[in-house]
Amino acid sequence: MPTPFAARLQEYTARISDCLERILPAEDVLPARLHAAMRYSVLNGGKRIRPLLAYASAECLNIDPQRIDSAATAIELIHAFSLVHDDLPAMDDDDLRRGKPTVHRKFDEATAILAADALQPLAFSAVAECTATTPEQSACLIRLIAHACGSRGMTGGQSIDLSSEGKTLSAAELEQMYALKTGALIHASIMSAACVADELTGTDRRGLQQYADSIGIAFQIRDDILDIEGETLIIGKPAGSDIRQDKATWPGLFGLEPARERCDELLQHSINGLECFGERAEPLRWLAHYIVDREQ
Amino acid sequence: MPTPFAARLQEYTARISDCLERILPAEDVLPARLHAAMRYSVLNGGKRIRPLLAYASAECLNIDPQRIDSAATAIELIHAFSLVHDDLPAMDDDDLRRGKPTVHRKFDEATAILAADALQPLAFSAVAECTATTPEQSACLIRLIAHACGSRGMTGGQSIDLSSEGKTLSAAELEQMYALKTGALIHASIMSAACVADELTGTDRRGLQQYADSIGIAFQIRDDILDIEGETLIIGKPAGSDIRQDKATWPGLFGLEPARERCDELLQHSINGLECFGERAEPLRWLAHYIVDREQ
Repeated sequence: MPTPFAARLQEYTARISDCLERILPAEDVLPARLHAAMRYSVLNGGKRIRPLLAYASAECLNIDPQRIDSAATAIELIHAFSLVHDDLPAMDDDDLRRGKPTVHRKFDEATAILAADALQPLAFSAVAECTATTPEQSACLIRLIAHACGSRGMTGGQSIDLSSEGKTLSAAELEQMYALKTGALIHASIMSAACVADELTGTDRRGLQQYADSIGIAFQIRDDILDIEGETLIIGKPAGSDIRQDKATWPGLFGLEPARERCDELLQHSINGLECFGERAEPLRWLAHYIVDREQ
Repeated sequence: MPTPFAARLQEYTARISDCLERILPAEDVLPARLHAAMRYSVLNGGKRIRPLLAYASAECLNIDPQRIDSAATAIELIHAFSLVHDDLPAMDDDDLRRGKPTVHRKFDEATAILAADALQPLAFSAVAECTATTPEQSACLIRLIAHACGSRGMTGGQSIDLSSEGKTLSAAELEQMYALKTGALIHASIMSAACVADELTGTDRRGLQQYADSIGIAFQIRDDILDIEGETLIIGKPAGSDIRQDKATWPGLFGLEPARERCDELLQHSINGLECFGERAEPLRWLAHYIVDREQ
């Protein structure tokens, strides 16, 4: 049964597609091959969960969507850059993403490295060039996003993930890695609304933080579960790519059922954080359930 | 005979080393290996020509050096990131840089990719967190630097460079590629002073642009000449790494002597741009000569 936010999903995904389409150089702009690779990596029918979280957070804080466009765009560009590099032979060495050849397979390795490299400055441009936010708000967004994708955020998490292959981690260590690898950018998607809010009470900020921290980790655990279940259902093999790569994952280390329980616990904790917002947080609640229940 | 700016060189290189040292996470901050690789790639005894150009441009426009620190730091971090990725097996496949193992040789390929990835957001953080510039000036710097290192700047130039191997380009096409690959970041180093200047006449801006555009191309041609001459003098081989990789270079396509003449012509053109500044441009003049005359 569609909730009001579910009914607006398509509007928002069209909105972010539009923003991405507009900021990405056209394929006939030189260097054409590089721009083709950038567009291929971004305009690929992704679920756009991070932009949706940004728009839902903006609704929660009564912010006009055009003031969150630049952050939503930047974060999706950063997410795309990270996927291109994660897929490289020196990293996860994946040939397919969403059923299509990965960028280094479709183009070549050098082009994949450079295309992703060029998505990062494009992301920061999106924020610095936005006229719907004040320069102070843009600077706040850039600090937030830069921290989220740097060595103490997403990129650091990916580095820890690679060095954890074949190792046994405690649940706390594992979730610390998830908080960086996946959680940091999801956290930034949500907290970007706080940067452009005219005012925000301490209680509201803490509530949003609690939601952001918990749902980011839940997102990754759900990904791990899908990596196992998806393979089992679709190609009849019990092991997904995480197991083949001997990755440290929640269900891999502690079992599928405990992973599902942990996911629900995190969902509940994230929803609890939204109490102070009442009805306005409905979109964020809807997205939290979507993240934990999704089948892809 | 040391000119006044030459006497301040050491002061400025110590200043930028200090800025870089302070912004880079320590090696004992997790993930330690990633941070070690980031520090290794940046704190490597580079010549710091881009920061020097930024400080000299600040002197030219009567700007306090502390207002250009963040741009100088960001640009040197971006430069370091680009070298790490350029050296990767999928790109130039270099084992040594400045006589030391390249980052992917010293660490591993995944760490090299990620360390460089993390230098980019650190660069934008440096600017966005700076309190010596106004939020408007920070946004101007971020737009400038993001454009310089993106697909229509440095990264685009590197992409064209790779696809030009073995091809014959006209001098104009070659210099267009140099303007992106090398010129864009040098241009940003110089024009960053214009972002933080309180006011700037159109004449001054055009003069600085002329200097910036010409010296960036001269810098790359000098690099090409050194790649040939350096090898010849030091290990007695007539061919440098550019020739081995069949790179399109100025001396390679048009000869060493014409390359030297073109370099001098660009030097003269860059110096002519500084006429409106009188004595205040002495540091930039000195650096232009240094760039064209340097032996490494």
